[in-house]
Amino acid sequence: MKAVFIVADGLAGRPTDVAGKTCLEAARTPNLDELARRGAIGLVDPIAPGIRPGSDTAHLSLLGYDPYQVYAGRGVFECLGIGMSVQPGDVCFRANFATVTPDEDGFIVKDRRAGRISFGQHELAEALNAISLKKSVGVEFDFRASTQHRGALLLRGEQLSRFVTDNDPHRSGKKAVAFRPIVGHDDEAACRTATALNELVTYSYEVLHDHPVNQQRDRAGEHPANYILARGASILPCLDPIETIYGVRGAVISGGALYRGIALACGMEPIDAPGATGGLDTDLRSKAKTALEALKTFDYVFIHVKGTDNAGHDKDAAGKTSFIQRIDAELIGPLMDGIDWNAAHLAFTGDHTTPIDYGDHTAEPVPVLFVGPNVRQDLTVAFGERDAGRGGLCRFSGQILPMLFNYNNWAPKFGS
Amino acid sequence: MKAVFIVADGLAGRPTDVAGKTCLEAARTPNLDELARRGAIGLVDPIAPGIRPGSDTAHLSLLGYDPYQVYAGRGVFECLGIGMSVQPGDVCFRANFATVTPDEDGFIVKDRRAGRISFGQHELAEALNAISLKKSVGVEFDFRASTQHRGALLLRGEQLSRFVTDNDPHRSGKKAVAFRPIVGHDDEAACRTATALNELVTYSYEVLHDHPVNQQRDRAGEHPANYILARGASILPCLDPIETIYGVRGAVISGGALYRGIALACGMEPIDAPGATGGLDTDLRSKAKTALEALKTFDYVFIHVKGTDNAGHDKDAAGKTSFIQRIDAELIGPLMDGIDWNAAHLAFTGDHTTPIDYGDHTAEPVPVLFVGPNVRQDLTVAFGERDAGRGGLCRFSGQILPMLFNYNNWAPKFGS
Repeated sequence: MKAVFIVADGLAGRPTDVAGKTCLEAARTPNLDELARRGAIGLVDPIAPGIRPGSDTAHLSLLGYDPYQVYAGRGVFECLGIGMSVQPGDVCFRANFATVTPDEDGFIVKDRRAGRISFGQHELAEALNAISLKKSVGVEFDFRASTQHRGALLLRGEQLSRFVTDNDPHRSGKKAVAFRPIVGHDDEAACRTATALNELVTYSYEVLHDHPVNQQRDRAGEHPANYILARGASILPCLDPIETIYGVRGAVISGGALYRGIALACGMEPIDAPGATGGLDTDLRSKAKTALEALKTFDYVFIHVKGTDNAGHDKDAAGKTSFIQRIDAELIGPLMDGIDWNAAHLAFTGDHTTPIDYGDHTAEPVPVLFVGPNVRQDLTVAFGERDAGRGGLCRFSGQILPMLFNYNNWAPKFGS
Repeated sequence: MKAVFIVADGLAGRPTDVAGKTCLEAARTPNLDELARRGAIGLVDPIAPGIRPGSDTAHLSLLGYDPYQVYAGRGVFECLGIGMSVQPGDVCFRANFATVTPDEDGFIVKDRRAGRISFGQHELAEALNAISLKKSVGVEFDFRASTQHRGALLLRGEQLSRFVTDNDPHRSGKKAVAFRPIVGHDDEAACRTATALNELVTYSYEVLHDHPVNQQRDRAGEHPANYILARGASILPCLDPIETIYGVRGAVISGGALYRGIALACGMEPIDAPGATGGLDTDLRSKAKTALEALKTFDYVFIHVKGTDNAGHDKDAAGKTSFIQRIDAELIGPLMDGIDWNAAHLAFTGDHTTPIDYGDHTAEPVPVLFVGPNVRQDLTVAFGERDAGRGGLCRFSGQILPMLFNYNNWAPKFGS
């Protein structure tokens, strides 16, 4: 038996999306409709009813973990997702290049994204990583650039803590905030961590400001990438690996670092699909082809598609609707043709609702579809939010991967 | 008001059971269909969505307890179920007679079920119970035979622990395993318990091998029952008695020791129905008659029927389907005639899915039916997995007995 688990990020919507319909309802999705006809659908609350999910917490829940038990911040998944090696005790951050100007006792953030820098990031990261912290003896760090201004930062040393605030003022023209221990967690480790971070970002300006890459940017009239903003302090969560729980090996195919990182933290192996970008321009046919190839050696594949959520955050109804149509035609279609349906189950869902007029995650439940030989087929013949509300699976919380694996008879028994 | 709670073990199935239908869907069940018409149905996740239940954990959940909080192993329910008196601190096991041959430093298990011994078990148990443990001073034990090779073992003494492994190699031809403390729980109590168990099973061979019952078996060419295998170490869980929670008294009617034991642990009183075997050959009319009689003195009756699950484990679709038809005709029918429907509610469900082609429990939700004057009647007119997916009760987790008692206005209020 094989299993395929697909999450279209921010898939679900609201009737305000497109003239009384959600983008998913407005989209033409003959392949998903056919799978709904062959299988069973329902509504899933990604975490629990009424809980507005983050992408990280929702994915942990869909993958079978209790985010209230295991979630310890987002940065660690970003670090893992861009290929950094994280060890227990490391404190990890989402980080990015920014443009600042020095103020009398700090730095004013002029551009939180350093003009969405598109070249030279890796040279800047190299220069940054050459710094040694002088006050914070014994604390090492690693900054890794990913796409544009984005990256991840990892702190390593004895007795560090994830309970520190961010330095991102979240608005241009504001002063970069000093890292501080979070009230109630302000122990020695948190103080030590905040001190190291403040030292690091101060040095970052010194090292980056006159760097040849920024001299070149200056000549081109672009904002220099001369400072590091870091947020989402986190540590490696204690997740029982999926292989330990179910005895099966899986691969993740995801252009987005976060989702790849979460899957890695669960023990999946990452596979690159050429052209997978984590954006609306991603190559969905390549993802389908890569998944079908991976199924020859792995027991299951987890495919994450990010474009739906990007369009939702950008309040782009047409973009979200047409991307859903592309998922149907370019990802679901080839998988339908390539999977051996006598020996496989597939689950398709979203990790939350991202309505167009709000442009951020909301708590409404999300449609979910299971198909394969062991699924009790229901009477639905179309896939969408309101069809799912009439589906044979009714409504339940999280746990999509465990349910998918249960159909494959891979689930461990609780009790005897 | 009276209440009747019926669990047909492993009731639910998959479309692979019988040409696209589950056994329940394939079965002719006019009485259950009529009750569905009069009442309301839905889908229940016996423990929680995506959790593959054991029989013990599922029953605890259906009876209103949180198995993650209270479950402490299965053996104690087997001990209770065959009439042993269990005290807090006792360590209990499922146990059975086996056939072994001595090896240089242990015993090779030739037959894990001692030829499914059918006579003399109680004499053998008596001989076994005459042993005194010499090294494990202060540890007493009691072995009780039940049906065929099956039985239960109870250890009593100060400072015993349930965190010990089994001695069952789970395959014939293998050496019986030494009991050991479980890693991470290997304290003095666990060591002491393992030592006592190893001493006990070694003596069991000495006492049983030349016992007259085995001499007789030997002459008949049957495997001697000359050794004890024990598994599922457990202790008495801390369960608030149902009478304490709801103020009502109930009886359990079950041929299977496990279910009777669980009900006893919740404070129900056991009633024997003549001919109830816990198998496919059970006398269902006798169970119905016994239940109707019990309702004259008890507030509620819990009826457990095991044959559905047995047929599922044996991958016997015809057997499961016809047993469901017998439940409908011989148990539900007489109850429908005998119950005063102006003053009673009834719940009927299963404790998990046992698909024919897998032959073990799976995590899919199970149909549940409530009927009685206070139930909001829904539009369904048939009882089955997919009818339940369209039922008015939608989908929820566990807690069937509390819901049944709520219809009888017996439920305690949380808050004021």
